[in-house]
Amino acid sequence: MIVDGKELAVKLNGKTYHCAMDITMDYIGGKWKTVVLWYLRDQHRRFGELKKMIPDITEKMLSLQLKQLEKDGLVGRKVYAEVPPKVEYYLTREGQSLLPILQAIADWGRHKGKTEGIIEEVVREKKKKKQLS
Amino acid sequence: MIVDGKELAVKLNGKTYHCAMDITMDYIGGKWKTVVLWYLRDQHRRFGELKKMIPDITEKMLSLQLKQLEKDGLVGRKVYAEVPPKVEYYLTREGQSLLPILQAIADWGRHKGKTEGIIEEVVREKKKKKQLS
Repeated sequence: MIVDGKELAVKLNGKTYHCAMDITMDYIGGKWKTVVLWYLRDQHRRFGELKKMIPDITEKMLSLQLKQLEKDGLVGRKVYAEVPPKVEYYLTREGQSLLPILQAIADWGRHKGKTEGIIEEVVREKKKKKQLS
Repeated sequence: MIVDGKELAVKLNGKTYHCAMDITMDYIGGKWKTVVLWYLRDQHRRFGELKKMIPDITEKMLSLQLKQLEKDGLVGRKVYAEVPPKVEYYLTREGQSLLPILQAIADWGRHKGKTEGIIEEVVREKKKKKQLS
């Protein structure tokens, strides 16, 4: 950032940022974070639900993203004292503060897809049950 | 995207997207694109100006980002018939449609930096002129 002819930087979480945008992109950049945050925008969800809503993400990658988002304070994790244990993820207040950005990102992509892309149904092959031989 | 229980995908520019957010992030994701777009938000700028405003980017990387943004239709390139040649970059109408997102990203990062970070001045060592020996 150049302010009054001086170059300023922000130190945050042990990193040095030269532009305000870099800070935000460090929290939401990458392939999956915006999508995971988006699916938590209006309700708590379990791991399996999120996995189902994001068919292309691997379990390992989803787990990694949730851990990172939790570490960054954007996502919370609620464990219910039940058997079997039930765990739900949700947006923290900090995560909710990103909703206007996420909404704008979703709107832009949706418009782009509608006006320039081709929308089609995805047919996934169901996993066949193992047959006993 | 799951709509009415059906999984939908969008084909755009030879890629298949399963979420509207992925489309947008393909255009603005990564370390530098938002920053370059941001510095073009209100005026045309030359390569050297951009390089000066983003001290940490290498010339090669800036050149690569501008080419990609131009290819994606977000940035235009105006060449003036002058000697030496003068080239300016600017946001296209499509690029301008991203401004609400970029503004929201900048605002969030600025707020985060101000409330949780430490702001300091960057003092860069000036390059010494080569001395003839």
